[in-house]
Amino acid sequence: MTQPEEIQWRVSPDIIEEALRKVLLVDCGGSRELAQLSEAMQYAVLGGGKRLRAQLVIEAAGAVCDFAKSTFTPEEYLPTACAIELIHAYSLVHDDLPAMDDSDLRRGRPSCHKKFGEAQAILAGDGLLNLAYEVLLQSAKSTFALQAAKVLSEAAGRIGMVGGQYEDICWSGNADLQIDAAPLLAMQARKTGALIRAAVECGAILAQATDEQHQQLRQYGIHLGEAFQLRDDVLDVEGDPALTGKESTDDANNKLTAPSVLGLEQTKQRAQQSCAAALACLENWGEAAQTLRQLAQFAVTRNK
Amino acid sequence: MTQPEEIQWRVSPDIIEEALRKVLLVDCGGSRELAQLSEAMQYAVLGGGKRLRAQLVIEAAGAVCDFAKSTFTPEEYLPTACAIELIHAYSLVHDDLPAMDDSDLRRGRPSCHKKFGEAQAILAGDGLLNLAYEVLLQSAKSTFALQAAKVLSEAAGRIGMVGGQYEDICWSGNADLQIDAAPLLAMQARKTGALIRAAVECGAILAQATDEQHQQLRQYGIHLGEAFQLRDDVLDVEGDPALTGKESTDDANNKLTAPSVLGLEQTKQRAQQSCAAALACLENWGEAAQTLRQLAQFAVTRNK
Repeated sequence: MTQPEEIQWRVSPDIIEEALRKVLLVDCGGSRELAQLSEAMQYAVLGGGKRLRAQLVIEAAGAVCDFAKSTFTPEEYLPTACAIELIHAYSLVHDDLPAMDDSDLRRGRPSCHKKFGEAQAILAGDGLLNLAYEVLLQSAKSTFALQAAKVLSEAAGRIGMVGGQYEDICWSGNADLQIDAAPLLAMQARKTGALIRAAVECGAILAQATDEQHQQLRQYGIHLGEAFQLRDDVLDVEGDPALTGKESTDDANNKLTAPSVLGLEQTKQRAQQSCAAALACLENWGEAAQTLRQLAQFAVTRNK
Repeated sequence: MTQPEEIQWRVSPDIIEEALRKVLLVDCGGSRELAQLSEAMQYAVLGGGKRLRAQLVIEAAGAVCDFAKSTFTPEEYLPTACAIELIHAYSLVHDDLPAMDDSDLRRGRPSCHKKFGEAQAILAGDGLLNLAYEVLLQSAKSTFALQAAKVLSEAAGRIGMVGGQYEDICWSGNADLQIDAAPLLAMQARKTGALIRAAVECGAILAQATDEQHQQLRQYGIHLGEAFQLRDDVLDVEGDPALTGKESTDDANNKLTAPSVLGLEQTKQRAQQSCAAALACLENWGEAAQTLRQLAQFAVTRNK
């Protein structure tokens, strides 16, 4: 079992946390309400979270640099890494809302709307999504940065994450619905996969990967995203809420999950296959992709 | 009284509508749910709306070009104009939600959550905000476009529109709260003013205004935004819902409005002062700013 503690990150999680803290800082000009909005946004982002997506940007970029034996300067990738975490955090805040998954718990604490109120959480989410783009625009100083931002924006939007969430919402609560494995996996590829894949692609693009490298990393990201979501569904059935830090709400919400469509054992098998497929994309990468390989293992063995 | 029909727009409203229709088009790959999300997004944007913000981008740019006697090519400004309308539309969808202003009516039709459901409306709003940035990133082909996008992103975010909405939400429903004119106007400057001011600034930046011109137009935008919101508050008291296309919810929500703080007559006076201040910023602009002047008049005389 690979746990995050054992992964040899190029950049320590503290550095990502510090970078996030910095982009969340703002001058509220003495307004108590703006300060509270800022607090709600910080609450939703800081203090917990694996930072998987941020690490993927950095590790994909690091792999490209190491392979080319070129200099790897982690700071270059932090703005994009932060922007992805902000997008991820906003999606969790909106996902947890009463009208959506109605989750009271997130990362072992009250979810944002439980702590700050529903209207406040909607706006904190909006503020986070917007801030992600403020950060991306401020750092878009090269054509590579602009291209990465475009890839990310498409992955976050209507045919990516938002689209997948929309499908998920429409399907859940409808017990009579017959959905096959293919549309279920396509939905999950949008809802969870797109952002994970985009994180890897952003790292590749920013580090100026060749087209071939970019495609290999992109495919790796697609398989990794699938493995990650399948494991999430398994943990929702088998996981310990004390470890995962969230409630098992899939069943209560009558959610369409991989175990409910494929069965639990088949889901675990498919997750292993996705992990193997992710690893296969890194065949030619040697030592440069060691952390990315650990991450693929982590995706399917994690307990939280 | 200046009504929108009488304004001599440089670009007909139909062209803006067509441009919005185009950016909203998407290949849903056969997914019924993605098609429905797209429908909800279109519903929220198309079919109504004054397009004030889009027109401000174009008219500010047109004023700069006319003043410099340089060629004015409206197509250059359409992506940014569309992006602002998408941001405006998302904010209305989220504003109307039950947890926020709880409005059933918008532009004379059921609001987005009334038509598509609450979770669906949250996601349609998220999709629109994200799409705005997809459009901005795709059109960010010059340093001017990038600078305009940055100005817009700051105006839309936590110290701009989202921040103002947060203040508004925190204050409303609290009948005991004593708020003075200054913080009320500051809140409105964020909630409504920031996006209107940013629209004018974007036009100025894209058309490569001089610093002095930029500052004059920026000030014009600030005053215009104030005039516009004050008139909105007056219409919420005196307006005909058959014309405004929305319910008078301010009173029901115990909202802090200019009439409730300043009184109705004082609000009307202040709106006239803001209009005059906006016009004063255009003193040196001659014929080039004729439409911007009409818009300032329109802001305070409109019935819808």
